[in-house]
Amino acid sequence: MELTVYLAGQIHDDWRNDVKSKAKEQDLPLHFVGPQENHERSDNIGEVIMGEQPDNIYRDDAASSVNNFRTQVLLQKSDAVIALFGENYKQWNTAMDASAAIQLGKPLILVRPKSLVHPLKELSNQANVTVETIDQALAVLNYIYE
Amino acid sequence: MELTVYLAGQIHDDWRNDVKSKAKEQDLPLHFVGPQENHERSDNIGEVIMGEQPDNIYRDDAASSVNNFRTQVLLQKSDAVIALFGENYKQWNTAMDASAAIQLGKPLILVRPKSLVHPLKELSNQANVTVETIDQALAVLNYIYE
Amino acid sequence: MELTVYLAGQIHDDWRNDVKSKAKEQDLPLHFVGPQENHERSDNIGEVIMGEQPDNIYRDDAASSVNNFRTQVLLQKSDAVIALFGENYKQWNTAMDASAAIQLGKPLILVRPKSLVHPLKELSNQANVTVETIDQALAVLNYIYE
Amino acid sequence: MELTVYLAGQIHDDWRNDVKSKAKEQDLPLHFVGPQENHERSDNIGEVIMGEQPDNIYRDDAASSVNNFRTQVLLQKSDAVIALFGENYKQWNTAMDASAAIQLGKPLILVRPKSLVHPLKELSNQANVTVETIDQALAVLNYIYE
Amino acid sequence: MELTVYLAGQIHDDWRNDVKSKAKEQDLPLHFVGPQENHERSDNIGEVIMGEQPDNIYRDDAASSVNNFRTQVLLQKSDAVIALFGENYKQWNTAMDASAAIQLGKPLILVRPKSLVHPLKELSNQANVTVETIDQALAVLNYIYE
Amino acid sequence: MELTVYLAGQIHDDWRNDVKSKAKEQDLPLHFVGPQENHERSDNIGEVIMGEQPDNIYRDDAASSVNNFRTQVLLQKSDAVIALFGENYKQWNTAMDASAAIQLGKPLILVRPKSLVHPLKELSNQANVTVETIDQALAVLNYIYE
Amino acid sequence: MELTVYLAGQIHDDWRNDVKSKAKEQDLPLHFVGPQENHERSDNIGEVIMGEQPDNIYRDDAASSVNNFRTQVLLQKSDAVIALFGENYKQWNTAMDASAAIQLGKPLILVRPKSLVHPLKELSNQANVTVETIDQALAVLNYIYE
Amino acid sequence: MELTVYLAGQIHDDWRNDVKSKAKEQDLPLHFVGPQENHERSDNIGEVIMGEQPDNIYRDDAASSVNNFRTQVLLQKSDAVIALFGENYKQWNTAMDASAAIQLGKPLILVRPKSLVHPLKELSNQANVTVETIDQALAVLNYIYE
Repeated sequence: MELTVYLAGQIHDDWRNDVKSKAKEQDLPLHFVGPQENHERSDNIGEVIMGEQPDNIYRDDAASSVNNFRTQVLLQKSDAVIALFGENYKQWNTAMDASAAIQLGKPLILVRPKSLVHPLKELSNQANVTVETIDQALAVLNYIYE
Repeated sequence: MELTVYLAGQIHDDWRNDVKSKAKEQDLPLHFVGPQENHERSDNIGEVIMGEQPDNIYRDDAASSVNNFRTQVLLQKSDAVIALFGENYKQWNTAMDASAAIQLGKPLILVRPKSLVHPLKELSNQANVTVETIDQALAVLNYIYE
Repeated sequence: MELTVYLAGQIHDDWRNDVKSKAKEQDLPLHFVGPQENHERSDNIGEVIMGEQPDNIYRDDAASSVNNFRTQVLLQKSDAVIALFGENYKQWNTAMDASAAIQLGKPLILVRPKSLVHPLKELSNQANVTVETIDQALAVLNYIYE
Repeated sequence: MELTVYLAGQIHDDWRNDVKSKAKEQDLPLHFVGPQENHERSDNIGEVIMGEQPDNIYRDDAASSVNNFRTQVLLQKSDAVIALFGENYKQWNTAMDASAAIQLGKPLILVRPKSLVHPLKELSNQANVTVETIDQALAVLNYIYE
Repeated sequence: MELTVYLAGQIHDDWRNDVKSKAKEQDLPLHFVGPQENHERSDNIGEVIMGEQPDNIYRDDAASSVNNFRTQVLLQKSDAVIALFGENYKQWNTAMDASAAIQLGKPLILVRPKSLVHPLKELSNQANVTVETIDQALAVLNYIYE
Repeated sequence: MELTVYLAGQIHDDWRNDVKSKAKEQDLPLHFVGPQENHERSDNIGEVIMGEQPDNIYRDDAASSVNNFRTQVLLQKSDAVIALFGENYKQWNTAMDASAAIQLGKPLILVRPKSLVHPLKELSNQANVTVETIDQALAVLNYIYE
Repeated sequence: MELTVYLAGQIHDDWRNDVKSKAKEQDLPLHFVGPQENHERSDNIGEVIMGEQPDNIYRDDAASSVNNFRTQVLLQKSDAVIALFGENYKQWNTAMDASAAIQLGKPLILVRPKSLVHPLKELSNQANVTVETIDQALAVLNYIYE
Repeated sequence: MELTVYLAGQIHDDWRNDVKSKAKEQDLPLHFVGPQENHERSDNIGEVIMGEQPDNIYRDDAASSVNNFRTQVLLQKSDAVIALFGENYKQWNTAMDASAAIQLGKPLILVRPKSLVHPLKELSNQANVTVETIDQALAVLNYIYE
């Protein structure tokens, strides 16, 4: 049984490649999807498609509409969601996607360092599973196939 | 027509009283609900009810379950939601509640300072209305009654 | 049994007052809601609340977000919807609200002149009832109480 | 990941072929569906199947039931919707399909010329993305695969 | 706790008055709603509101749209449904309303004579409770208040 | 695009084979499912699986539970439903399945002879399309592929 | 804000009166509903209404249909659910009602002694809050009103 | 038509292998999924992935979150559910999964010995089919393919 997993989280480093290569090493039949990972591209995409905007607020508004379109298409195709939080960046997108996953009935694995237990406690309580590392998240997915 | 409005956001200052007193001044038939606003009480409530926990992680887990129960009851009773973001605190709860409101079809007003346009752009794009002040949020609610 | 009815349609003349006064004459226990009927106010409301926008496109975008917020709150409170089409104006809002009513399971009465049968045939086919006058729409509502 | 996209809009010219051939040129794994594009066939289909009707109103009613059946089957099979508006024709079907897509949670790209910004502002505000050309709409779809 | 109960079934005799008067005798806080009970009125209502139709088929189509509008409004307001079948008439409306109630999650009491056990066995199997008399149906409703 | 179509209706003659062979002749990529067509088997299946029952009422109850299980599995797998009514038999199962299809959002084609227009008028009004013959129903399905 | 709370659990002792009197002492604006608490009545109700059944299996089947009707009506009217487990009895009804509450989005408080932690761990993990005593459950409800 | 069937029930013996081998013998195109069947692994999985927990209560809480994640993923992928009850063990998980299946619209076969008729009567009344043996459950699945 192949499963599609949405990888919600920041796009400032390549943690998703880490997930993908570890899943491959373990021969898990998982297909991963997620947001645009090129940060500049993600911020520019509105102006790239719709042309120059009056100022940064409108530039952000244009980009966000394209990013949300992509997320909605891919989240609806997913069987499960991993949401990763780290100590940097606001990551409100991550919280938004994680909460959307819960409301849409998509099983959710939350990954966060111990230092973020307190501010994430309500979201963690609603997630199916909360772990601290990507390896643990993959172990949870692996458990489906045992 | 009376409406119930859930006020999502941080509980470190008394911005909700500001909303409530301004709504009262304008004679708006609004009933406001929201999370526990006493911050210490919100953090303690798990141990207050369930007794001492092994450490802070379990203390947070216990508190969050009671806080989430309260939120789910009150959010389901609401006709609309205001989610307020400021420059301090992680506010992942706020993003979680705002996203849940969107998925549940509860009309959402997002309030955030101009400085937070960029990190909140995807959430703002999904909200019904985004404004910068509480006065503007009340003006949106007022407009329903014109 | 009191019912709330949303009145979707253009806001260039006062057809809603016609509906309301006729319902009152017939002593029907109906409560009517609908969009902002002051056309200028409806177009301005974005800039009134959020301040001046870069150009007319952004002015329209700001206004529409407040108008949609109002519609979503009131449509969800309604037990039935009347959507009126006439020979003037684009009226895409009316088609949008009528279709939303159908998808949300809100019983829908479509009112349109005979001249518009052809372009409205698919929407008419999805509506519960299609009539040509406001008096007929009220007769349908009256029938609930017989 | 193959995606099915419903193309809502008028059937008086062959804009859908334009979409399809451009998607093919870009090797996008998209499958397009939509309404009957032969306008006369679309208007006649009721009488073709059910026989002659008493007058044009009933002829339209018969045709619309078959057209709506087709649309409902294909819209439910779709992962995303493009709704195109132009300066001619009433296009209430397009508004109806676009609004149905929104309510059914199908991600929506609205395509409309600048001249139609004002009358489409509320629908545009609810769409995921609004652009002015078919090329831009395809660029949005393309972005999913980056 | 007051409850609203929809009474689905034929409209050729006054069985609904029997239900209502027995509920009154037992002081049950029930509010009953249902279809138009004047059979001629129910058949005529399309032409009464929309004017003369080309033939009986169109007359029936017009009447059914108004009857379905009434049913949808009132069924959605109900907390439970009683569907009564007897030995006369086609009663496909009753089967349609009973099945709609099941799909909408409205608890359903089916009333039918022993002679109809076989043709109603699949519907009976989906209903919450199946009984043979109105008195038994009221006993089921009464049980809620014990 | 292959579609699965549920064939609701009586099981006393082999009308489903007629549908299937005509679809094959026209090379339509349709997959048909439906209830058990061996009438005796359908009535016996409860006792065949669960053993002898106390009397015919319980025999019917046992059979109906297995038949409903089959219908629920197959209806949920279907993209559209054809419901055929004829002049014989009670056919309350057919009305029940047709109404379930409507509530589940499955596009519905109703097939009935002219003689049944009146008793089926409310169900016909809720169906997507109503026709009089199997050939017409197939023409409606064929239209999806034009 | 008054809330209705369904009390799921065994009906062999009067624990519900304990809940009700404690809520009254604390002046909580709660309205409690639940199953028939007279155990013999609950077991007999099928035969009382539908007459003698062939044997105990059919007697149980008749009773369960009336009990389930009552539960469905009252659970749908509730804003929250308390499910209490103790060391005696099978209590599969309690698990069934608790799971139904979760799936219906009704916030759930689970009450169980420490001795039952292990067999209830998956249900507890899905509940909003798990506590050990009725006093704790009331403290959770009380917290909504702080 | 291949179907996926979730096998809910205790994990203390290998009844699932019995189901699978009998389905294979009968050449049924069924794919079976279910919980982790290694009991010790199921109880340990929380600590295996998340590390040692403060005590058995927290150990159980950790394990249950991983088990629930697996169940939610697989139950959502299923077309039907078999829930087996026996005379040993609490089996509240089984009741929870069976009730979730009902609420999610997954057709449900309940398997239980005659000795458990009384305590399972309400759950049995909500299931599609109730039988006493695995052979009977497979006969019900087999009937779909006749």
